[in-house]
Amino acid sequence: MAQQKIAFIGLGIMGLPMAKNLVAAGFSVAGYNRSPEKTAELVAAGGTAAGTIGEAVAEADVIITMVPDSPDVEGVVIGENGAFAQAKDGALWIDNSTIRPDVAVALAEEARAVGLRALDAPVSGGEAGAISGALSIMVGGDAADFAAAADVFAAVGKTIVHVGPAGSGQTVKAANQLIVAANIQALAEGVAFLEAYGVDTTAALEVLGGGLAGSKVLDQKGQKMLDRDFAPGFRLALHHKDMGIVTAAAREAGVVLPLGGLVAQLVASTVASGDGGLDHSGLFRGVQRLGGSDTTAEAAATTTA
Amino acid sequence: MAQQKIAFIGLGIMGLPMAKNLVAAGFSVAGYNRSPEKTAELVAAGGTAAGTIGEAVAEADVIITMVPDSPDVEGVVIGENGAFAQAKDGALWIDNSTIRPDVAVALAEEARAVGLRALDAPVSGGEAGAISGALSIMVGGDAADFAAAADVFAAVGKTIVHVGPAGSGQTVKAANQLIVAANIQALAEGVAFLEAYGVDTTAALEVLGGGLAGSKVLDQKGQKMLDRDFAPGFRLALHHKDMGIVTAAAREAGVVLPLGGLVAQLVASTVASGDGGLDHSGLFRGVQRLGGSDTTAEAAATTTA
Amino acid sequence: MAQQKIAFIGLGIMGLPMAKNLVAAGFSVAGYNRSPEKTAELVAAGGTAAGTIGEAVAEADVIITMVPDSPDVEGVVIGENGAFAQAKDGALWIDNSTIRPDVAVALAEEARAVGLRALDAPVSGGEAGAISGALSIMVGGDAADFAAAADVFAAVGKTIVHVGPAGSGQTVKAANQLIVAANIQALAEGVAFLEAYGVDTTAALEVLGGGLAGSKVLDQKGQKMLDRDFAPGFRLALHHKDMGIVTAAAREAGVVLPLGGLVAQLVASTVASGDGGLDHSGLFRGVQRLGGSDTTAEAAATTTA
Amino acid sequence: MAQQKIAFIGLGIMGLPMAKNLVAAGFSVAGYNRSPEKTAELVAAGGTAAGTIGEAVAEADVIITMVPDSPDVEGVVIGENGAFAQAKDGALWIDNSTIRPDVAVALAEEARAVGLRALDAPVSGGEAGAISGALSIMVGGDAADFAAAADVFAAVGKTIVHVGPAGSGQTVKAANQLIVAANIQALAEGVAFLEAYGVDTTAALEVLGGGLAGSKVLDQKGQKMLDRDFAPGFRLALHHKDMGIVTAAAREAGVVLPLGGLVAQLVASTVASGDGGLDHSGLFRGVQRLGGSDTTAEAAATTTA
Repeated sequence: MAQQKIAFIGLGIMGLPMAKNLVAAGFSVAGYNRSPEKTAELVAAGGTAAGTIGEAVAEADVIITMVPDSPDVEGVVIGENGAFAQAKDGALWIDNSTIRPDVAVALAEEARAVGLRALDAPVSGGEAGAISGALSIMVGGDAADFAAAADVFAAVGKTIVHVGPAGSGQTVKAANQLIVAANIQALAEGVAFLEAYGVDTTAALEVLGGGLAGSKVLDQKGQKMLDRDFAPGFRLALHHKDMGIVTAAAREAGVVLPLGGLVAQLVASTVASGDGGLDHSGLFRGVQRLGGSDTTAEAAATTTA
Repeated sequence: MAQQKIAFIGLGIMGLPMAKNLVAAGFSVAGYNRSPEKTAELVAAGGTAAGTIGEAVAEADVIITMVPDSPDVEGVVIGENGAFAQAKDGALWIDNSTIRPDVAVALAEEARAVGLRALDAPVSGGEAGAISGALSIMVGGDAADFAAAADVFAAVGKTIVHVGPAGSGQTVKAANQLIVAANIQALAEGVAFLEAYGVDTTAALEVLGGGLAGSKVLDQKGQKMLDRDFAPGFRLALHHKDMGIVTAAAREAGVVLPLGGLVAQLVASTVASGDGGLDHSGLFRGVQRLGGSDTTAEAAATTTA
Repeated sequence: MAQQKIAFIGLGIMGLPMAKNLVAAGFSVAGYNRSPEKTAELVAAGGTAAGTIGEAVAEADVIITMVPDSPDVEGVVIGENGAFAQAKDGALWIDNSTIRPDVAVALAEEARAVGLRALDAPVSGGEAGAISGALSIMVGGDAADFAAAADVFAAVGKTIVHVGPAGSGQTVKAANQLIVAANIQALAEGVAFLEAYGVDTTAALEVLGGGLAGSKVLDQKGQKMLDRDFAPGFRLALHHKDMGIVTAAAREAGVVLPLGGLVAQLVASTVASGDGGLDHSGLFRGVQRLGGSDTTAEAAATTTA
Repeated sequence: MAQQKIAFIGLGIMGLPMAKNLVAAGFSVAGYNRSPEKTAELVAAGGTAAGTIGEAVAEADVIITMVPDSPDVEGVVIGENGAFAQAKDGALWIDNSTIRPDVAVALAEEARAVGLRALDAPVSGGEAGAISGALSIMVGGDAADFAAAADVFAAVGKTIVHVGPAGSGQTVKAANQLIVAANIQALAEGVAFLEAYGVDTTAALEVLGGGLAGSKVLDQKGQKMLDRDFAPGFRLALHHKDMGIVTAAAREAGVVLPLGGLVAQLVASTVASGDGGLDHSGLFRGVQRLGGSDTTAEAAATTTA
């Protein structure tokens, strides 16, 4: 089989390492980014630079988009300068962005209407997972399209699961963000409690990690809370956007999320307090503020670091 | 060194397998239980039966208590018929119960006042961990006493950590229960959301488990929520007690727990709704009720199972 | 001054008595309703019936809309068959509906673009207030337009306040719905608490009403909670819609509503549980359910009543 | 009937004006206060000063206590130097303090055991109500004792209601504090929302007060929030104590308070943030902090004022 050609739109903190991993796996990758500096890094890694979306997708068998939010995805695929209008007939569009499930469903329909195939395939695992090619990928769409994309997914991810029809990937990602935010908030409250009582917190995290409280969040974020290290990682501002997605989708479906509703407000508070650029483990700073701590000095330290 | 003699008070769902593991590790174990049938199982495993607390502790180098709540511990150690008054001088008291940190501190002082040594050493890991000897044990007290108890702890646990002075074990256990309850509630809301949208939930749990949402709670409770299998395990009624401990201790210390405060109410609701005897994964049933599901039929199924 | 002509669109539980009060105050009122039966009642009261929106607005100096939600307002004012396209030049549009503030702002701009004037003027006070002409009216728009509408407002309301530019009326109404829902939920929890302790609840409501806990909600809903009388009044399904408006608008503006976020979930739960058709005092039934009460029998009683 | 003699223990911000009103109503009042300066004010108003509790109660027909918390009441009534041991046989003890209902029940039993009669009679209405003699009084105890105390209550209160047996007054007061705190928090969130959208907030409060959102809290605290005037009034530190009472009592009775649980945390946060000395309308500052406002400058202004 001839080498597959991939158009990769969105070479940000996640997209660039994913595109590089695709190059490394033997794909021919044409990258496009709104601010073109990022494209140079892809070229250095063996990809090619596209000056427009049309140029990127013209020959592509697979079109990947990795941009921040629902309007961004619409912006790059819809319209006469968008990917859909300029793609090869039968090309496969994979959207790795995290967007609203209903928008994902609508866009998949539009893609099919113009003769394309579509998968919504948001990822979890952060920058580290993107670099190491170990992302979790939750995929919505037709099973045949999922099967056809196996090599592409294998180049960037490790846990790759087909979870249902179009939109299902985004639904699972929404649940992922709900659970992750709540687990971080729970850990943050637990750590604040332990610090207030003066126990050996590093030892405490060790023993908590060995029992039912153990989690990826505790493993990856616990010690960082103790160290007040909130360098991103995944930014609170993006998690705030995602909590908006999951609470709105739950409302739409008649699902009641008492914890989710509160966590969404607590995430919103961190953004309102100026911590939107910190890692989502920065929810700990919200707990500190509620407990009366002045986090200004620590903020300065974090910013400098 | 001569074989250490252990008095084990409280041979319940956790205590009995722990006592058996101590026998298997070569300790001489005299068991006492309020309702004496349980003692027979220990005798069958090679332990001995004590008819009174005094008989159990008379020759013991180590006295272990494993009972439900603060008043229960006070009931077995305080008073002229209690363990403290009848123990050998210098004996080591290890309390594996989950109780209020302030009560643990007070009882440790009383123990020292009568010439005993004391460790608060609550455990995490459930019945399965108790049977397999793989509990996590969070220990508060003097470092020397912790060191002296190494062989005892090794017989029942796997992750064994000294987390600070008297009471610290209970403090860490309180944080553990806070985090576990919140993680369960978050998972329950996520699962309810996924079910409402009709995705492949088993596949979804797999991919969630591979990303940052992964946790012991998801591994152990996720599929059971899908299966509506809420057989205990760790009962909601006990977790309700524990949420009372952590919220009261937080109030005492001036720590603010917005998530913890809400989760405590949601746990309370399951108990008020008659689910106190179910596993704590039964928080999922509370989410269902909030979403308008009639859980009566399922309750019947669970009870029959 | 010649008699002002009013087009009244939306003759529902609120709109019909308001339109009648306008007739009684001497205005010439042409009524339009999607389902035309309601128009007959207006005609009987001295108004006229319009078969289309165009017919209603053709001669109108003032166009009033009173429909359930943002899309309904858009549906009656936008498009070639809508009110804007067919209104007299310079006519004043007053929207008494409760809709999203951002939609109100956008529609006011569209109205001005076609030579109309616009006020957003949602009301509070319920069916009783609509019938007695004692509504509170919170008005957004130009001061001159507010002044020009004085007679119209005086015919239907009692507390009539200009609160700012276009959209401000809806913003204040959103805050109203937030406060009302929270006050009802607080009262419901208080009543459940009092009932659990077996105090004389009617006496308790009397003394609570005399102190700082006193409120319109307590006066109007307290005894009804004790009587389990949840006949609407203002339906939970509509309050659910309104909680969606206020939480979304708060998110947009970076305002954090911890209580509002939770109350929105509790309102959502009543709707999911089938109580959407009850009065919003039916939040009490949600508190009962959380407390383990089977509300099915009471539901039957309420439905029958 | 001879002039009734009253012992008044606790001449604080509430107790002193109440005692003065009793003097003005013709009672003979002997006042006792831990710090004796306050007694001088009572003497100036026509009362007498007692140097000890025993001296105050020796001749008293009625013994009134008005102190901050459960342990304070126990401190003045229990023990050989306490009021119970030194009171006249058959004297009536009225506790106007706000304490735990279960403690009120226990103390009423102790009072009866030594031949006294007892009423728990917490009040609502704040310093203003105490000065003007317009308090709401919620009374638990025997109906005959309530009737016997009519003249005493009439001298200090306006809405005076017997709500049930011993402890019931405290139960109703606990519900009062729950509702008041939630109503304040709801108003605070509403005001923050209105300010963010730049509406005319004074006008908005006027129209809100005319509709279903109207309440004593809105009337008394709304404009003060706009003015950032948080001079007490009723201190957040005391409301924090009271939220502990109502959440614990709800837990005891199996009542689930989702809103109450969250409000208790938000009140706790204001105290942890150093606002415990402000009026409970200072919950608004918590909402501001969650929204990212630096309240330090305002705090300074408030403290200076």
